[in-house]
Amino acid sequence: MAYSKFSELVEKCKQKPHTKTVAVAGAADEHVLEAIVEAEKIDLVRPILIGNTDEIENVLRKLGEDPADYRMIHAETAADCGIEAVELIKNGEAEFIMKGMLDTKDVLKPLVKKENGLHTGRAMCVFAYTEVPQMKRLLAVSDGGMIPYPTLEQKKDIVLNCVDVLHKLGVENPSVAVLAAVEKVNPKMVETVDAAALIEMNRNGEIPGCEIVGPVSFDIAMSKEIAKTKKYDCPYCGDFDMFLVPTIAAGNLMHKAMVLCGGSKMAGVVVGAKVPVVLTSRGASTEEKFVSLALASLIS
Amino acid sequence: MAYSKFSELVEKCKQKPHTKTVAVAGAADEHVLEAIVEAEKIDLVRPILIGNTDEIENVLRKLGEDPADYRMIHAETAADCGIEAVELIKNGEAEFIMKGMLDTKDVLKPLVKKENGLHTGRAMCVFAYTEVPQMKRLLAVSDGGMIPYPTLEQKKDIVLNCVDVLHKLGVENPSVAVLAAVEKVNPKMVETVDAAALIEMNRNGEIPGCEIVGPVSFDIAMSKEIAKTKKYDCPYCGDFDMFLVPTIAAGNLMHKAMVLCGGSKMAGVVVGAKVPVVLTSRGASTEEKFVSLALASLIS
Repeated sequence: MAYSKFSELVEKCKQKPHTKTVAVAGAADEHVLEAIVEAEKIDLVRPILIGNTDEIENVLRKLGEDPADYRMIHAETAADCGIEAVELIKNGEAEFIMKGMLDTKDVLKPLVKKENGLHTGRAMCVFAYTEVPQMKRLLAVSDGGMIPYPTLEQKKDIVLNCVDVLHKLGVENPSVAVLAAVEKVNPKMVETVDAAALIEMNRNGEIPGCEIVGPVSFDIAMSKEIAKTKKYDCPYCGDFDMFLVPTIAAGNLMHKAMVLCGGSKMAGVVVGAKVPVVLTSRGASTEEKFVSLALASLIS
Repeated sequence: MAYSKFSELVEKCKQKPHTKTVAVAGAADEHVLEAIVEAEKIDLVRPILIGNTDEIENVLRKLGEDPADYRMIHAETAADCGIEAVELIKNGEAEFIMKGMLDTKDVLKPLVKKENGLHTGRAMCVFAYTEVPQMKRLLAVSDGGMIPYPTLEQKKDIVLNCVDVLHKLGVENPSVAVLAAVEKVNPKMVETVDAAALIEMNRNGEIPGCEIVGPVSFDIAMSKEIAKTKKYDCPYCGDFDMFLVPTIAAGNLMHKAMVLCGGSKMAGVVVGAKVPVVLTSRGASTEEKFVSLALASLIS
């Protein structure tokens, strides 16, 4: 069963008997705490706030909250915030991480440190869950956020990461479109060659638990009707679970066009380690922040 | 003065005292002839139809036309159609080319042949003119159709080609956004490094007659408000004349997302030689076909 709307994810998360605990690394920020406070109120998450506790308390008071209601851990530097968050995961006190006001690397560095045992060995990527008005189900897009020019091996990791997440969300055999400008394998376009290689890996069991299709262009992947007109024989067109994009720029431009021109909504989580990391953008709507937290909670 | 709507281009073309002649290479196709017949009726173009004349006559009759009203040139093969079209350009009998039912290379090969003197020496690209509901002016996007991974030199050519076209359309000092996933130059992302190099070429006069900005992400380039929020200081955001995309895949995915999800409309012309070549897609609307013809007519 695939989700069709963001609101369903949030509802599902609220219904869980056990509310997940999130380690918020770099919590001393109004934007971050506002999202956390609101999410905590509707039982979406239990937070542990990491950062300068004086500053965190000030922001909480500004938001009309009593700091005594929140568990906090003092950390002076951004690097320390990341280390503390990962410690909480290792100790089993927190189940996933939210990146607050610090660089992504401050969290990812301790997270992928071998000794910490939280790395899967796979390249990490951004799982961008997308609610597209033109599609019946939520669509995963990756990677438009971390790896500039993924190699074939990294593309394999990206698919494995996202298929794992989709399985956890209840999508049994996700369909994955390897996007390109054309439908024919063309040795001058590496994304088309990689598409053929990924399909072969899918067939020989190296990328199990999903159905990989490609190379395929955006219009055909998005529309059953266009696929029919262009004689592209594939049952998933208009109904894919995931779009694998060729580069960070291609993913970023396509995805932002879907959001800005097409009214799609996007929530992003970094996946590939044993626990997900929520990224929040300053410009994200409250709904998008909630969905990111619910998503991370459901898959952690 | 920049155009704000497709309909203005068609009107401008109709008002010209001299109606341009188009050499239609590979005309024996209902889809191609329908567009040409309709365009001829509103004085948008005068066509010379190249292909198997028996077949062309049959299609014309099927469309309710009298073949005697049309000038035709018989050519047996696709390659011959392209050669005949380029001959008409060389003789001054036609002013631009429309690609009918044949491969693009059948037209481009004779067009760029040195002896024919129609090549500018620049890499050719697709000038995709786009009517975007969110923007006040028509937007040129390139290259999402010809060069898989343009080098810096080829990107320079793409910008020079498109700026020439924009000048011909009356846009005095077009603003060009070099799109990427980020706004900072990052040595790991070649499109950001190329953006800085193109800006330098713009400053030192190698790419004159325009204003180049970048690297810039799609959302900032598209919206004055987002640019302000993200503190990107540039007067063109929300109002660019051209988007330079990093690769064919990035351009294709972004552009199709704008069209399919966002209701943008697109008309495409191959530029870079001394005359433009109209490409028509089977799926293009009548309006888009007209705009492509009007565009080629205005810039040839």
